[in-house]
Amino acid sequence: MKALKERILKEGRCLPGGILKVDSFINHQMDPVLMEEMAEELVRRFSDVRVDKVLTVEASGIAPAIMVGYLLRKPVVFAKKAKPSTMSDFYTAKVFSFTKNREYDICLSRNYLSEGDNVLFIDDFLANGNAAVGVIDLVSQAGADLVGLGFLIEKDFQPGGAMLRSEGYRVESLAIIESLEDCQVKFKE
Amino acid sequence: MKALKERILKEGRCLPGGILKVDSFINHQMDPVLMEEMAEELVRRFSDVRVDKVLTVEASGIAPAIMVGYLLRKPVVFAKKAKPSTMSDFYTAKVFSFTKNREYDICLSRNYLSEGDNVLFIDDFLANGNAAVGVIDLVSQAGADLVGLGFLIEKDFQPGGAMLRSEGYRVESLAIIESLEDCQVKFKE
Repeated sequence: MKALKERILKEGRCLPGGILKVDSFINHQMDPVLMEEMAEELVRRFSDVRVDKVLTVEASGIAPAIMVGYLLRKPVVFAKKAKPSTMSDFYTAKVFSFTKNREYDICLSRNYLSEGDNVLFIDDFLANGNAAVGVIDLVSQAGADLVGLGFLIEKDFQPGGAMLRSEGYRVESLAIIESLEDCQVKFKE
Repeated sequence: MKALKERILKEGRCLPGGILKVDSFINHQMDPVLMEEMAEELVRRFSDVRVDKVLTVEASGIAPAIMVGYLLRKPVVFAKKAKPSTMSDFYTAKVFSFTKNREYDICLSRNYLSEGDNVLFIDDFLANGNAAVGVIDLVSQAGADLVGLGFLIEKDFQPGGAMLRSEGYRVESLAIIESLEDCQVKFKE
């Protein structure tokens, strides 16, 4: 997606370890107009599948997910990274975060994901795919169907995208970064 | 706001300790169409103030804030509840959570809040006002101006709203709950 790629080139900053910081417009400060345009593009790419529910993980997945849900007129659920004290009956899965070098649990109330639901997962980044694996686990526990995974930015030099596609999942990413070598952003064509 | 109050009466569940659970449409599962309508109403109520930036706190403030920012065509920033490993220069403030009975830090990069910015704070709930107090601290550290605080739901039987209004802040809440006695939701007229 052209507008996103241009913005990454203009404002993205690369840090050691293959990290691309886009916190001026995606995951700390957010540009809501670009966010809506990205949601439109994700909706367009998944226009041939039936979606009953949009699923994401807090926190930086919420903004793109709510925009996608708004355009689809479907409910959006975000998995929580800690079990809320007021939640009693939930699905849970473990996610390993490379950035934080620790494992955490994601939780989702059983009330909001049901057998037969067609689920579209939306998140800001696809890198190692750990959050996606946790979400696949939650969706499977619910007996729901994951009809696709949509990401704003995918890092092709990390294994998440290849792993998910090889397992037969439909993955759409609006900007795919082939490499960040020497801090040069190179997009996959 | 009528649509919100009706939804609270229909789907809200009351728990011991003055807790109102609205996680079927606001803060776990979200109804994006209602979210957009609530954002429209908040924008209407603050239509006489100049807003440069919308500020919220992760995670459940993000959905209403991104919708408000989209309608205003202004950037949205969410304060983080933990210092990200890749953030170096930030404002920080302490927030006490009654629900979780512990104190946590909220963090905001210095890049995204500046002296003279007119800031509108948006969040899902106003109860004791602890998150708001932390945000007031962050905004003050930046030398920015807090032009208003907008909430979806305010619990009038907890002290946050009265405290903020007595300090001269402009507070708008779309549904104000006077009491939850005997698990009956009573709205303030």
